[in-house]
Amino acid sequence: MASGRTVFFVSDGTGITAETLGKGLLSQFEGMNFHQVRFPFLDNPKKAKECLLRIRKAREQDGIRPLVIMTMMNSEISAMLRQEDALFLDLFEVFIAPLEKELGVRSAHTVGRSHGGTGSEYTNRIAAMSFAIAHDDGVSDADLKNADVILIGVSRCGKTPTSLYLSMQFGLKAANYPLIPEDIQRDRLPDTLLPFRDKLFGLTIAPEQLHLIRQERRPDSNYAALDTCWKEVAAAERLMKREGIEWFDMTSRSIEEIAVQIIQAINKR
Amino acid sequence: MASGRTVFFVSDGTGITAETLGKGLLSQFEGMNFHQVRFPFLDNPKKAKECLLRIRKAREQDGIRPLVIMTMMNSEISAMLRQEDALFLDLFEVFIAPLEKELGVRSAHTVGRSHGGTGSEYTNRIAAMSFAIAHDDGVSDADLKNADVILIGVSRCGKTPTSLYLSMQFGLKAANYPLIPEDIQRDRLPDTLLPFRDKLFGLTIAPEQLHLIRQERRPDSNYAALDTCWKEVAAAERLMKREGIEWFDMTSRSIEEIAVQIIQAINKR
Repeated sequence: MASGRTVFFVSDGTGITAETLGKGLLSQFEGMNFHQVRFPFLDNPKKAKECLLRIRKAREQDGIRPLVIMTMMNSEISAMLRQEDALFLDLFEVFIAPLEKELGVRSAHTVGRSHGGTGSEYTNRIAAMSFAIAHDDGVSDADLKNADVILIGVSRCGKTPTSLYLSMQFGLKAANYPLIPEDIQRDRLPDTLLPFRDKLFGLTIAPEQLHLIRQERRPDSNYAALDTCWKEVAAAERLMKREGIEWFDMTSRSIEEIAVQIIQAINKR
Repeated sequence: MASGRTVFFVSDGTGITAETLGKGLLSQFEGMNFHQVRFPFLDNPKKAKECLLRIRKAREQDGIRPLVIMTMMNSEISAMLRQEDALFLDLFEVFIAPLEKELGVRSAHTVGRSHGGTGSEYTNRIAAMSFAIAHDDGVSDADLKNADVILIGVSRCGKTPTSLYLSMQFGLKAANYPLIPEDIQRDRLPDTLLPFRDKLFGLTIAPEQLHLIRQERRPDSNYAALDTCWKEVAAAERLMKREGIEWFDMTSRSIEEIAVQIIQAINKR
């Protein structure tokens, strides 16, 4: 068992759902060594055979049977795979049957419906992503007006990835506005932001972590100095507190967590 | 049943996994009307009670029992919810038990491990997202050198959202390079791209769809004219074919699907 155990993420669609849930499940088993293999678009017997051989080979090499985490609509192909000796966890199989019973209808059993390239939700997401990119780091008044949410905070505190995630996952038009030392010195919100108070959220981060992030970008600069980071973060937090801006601390939180907290805060407003 | 049925996405973490899988499941039941409610960070009895009341109210208003799709680590809170009359589908419950048995260890039963803010995979993703944003739409030689993948194609064919998705989901440094009419007229790859052939992938799209997308950006311009779109797309495809660039058609494909196909193509190289 030296090399650990192989986990296959298998799907007749993109396999993204299988991989997302699968990683969530595996993360519950700390210290175990998993080797991950993706098998998306497994939509014909030929590909299934290939996958089958890979599963077998992994079992032989690892000396232990693999895990196969799948979302398979095509039950014939699913049955083919199950000839192998592995632990199969099929997300759709387990949930589609109780849903069909509850809803009193048969499911479509078709692949890839969850992210088709046509629906209005999808178009919204694309538009929101374009918006987030175009309005990264300092934007005009007109742009702020069109934003659903505006993130403020010191440089490199996590505004950009959070905006992007909000746009991609939730279809929100997210702009972000950096608090530069001049803003912080004036100790009040930049005038540009005043009309948009109701869309503002702040982000902050521990100065030590900010220092490390800025060091990578501009090593040994004044910008990256720990002292600068301390001062900027303290002043930005003071400013946000005084102005009554709701803010979130990125320090040991992931972007996903912060994004969901922002969504919740928006819903409450 | 006029108002449809309410679906709750409930989690003691972000709930993103529950929502992603849940939407995939619901998309299999076409034409049914689902009203979606998120309940993330449900990590104490007080919040559970709130959620419980919402579930009850939804059942009374809809005249039919709600669906509750969950990822709950905390089994006490999970048990509290289950007092209500609803269909509960708990992703972790169904899969954690067989995994524990197979792996011969107990799971950590802790929340939010799948996207913690510290691991190297996470840091990679953040770096890749910054890269994708900084190198959107035309980049320098030095930047192309650092890219894991470079997407080429005519303006508005989908390069930007695809780069972003590749960076966010797979941690790839994705740059993109627009094929402008001048490149296409010369009918050969721009010199800048020549050293990076092995990282190039093309994107294309049906001219009619491109026309609609460009119309929104610059209505009734020459840039958006159907005739322009036809010519650009035809010439870009001819160029990519002649240069032996592998390319993908965004026309009725989602960004997720194209991104996974690119990942597969990279793995094959």
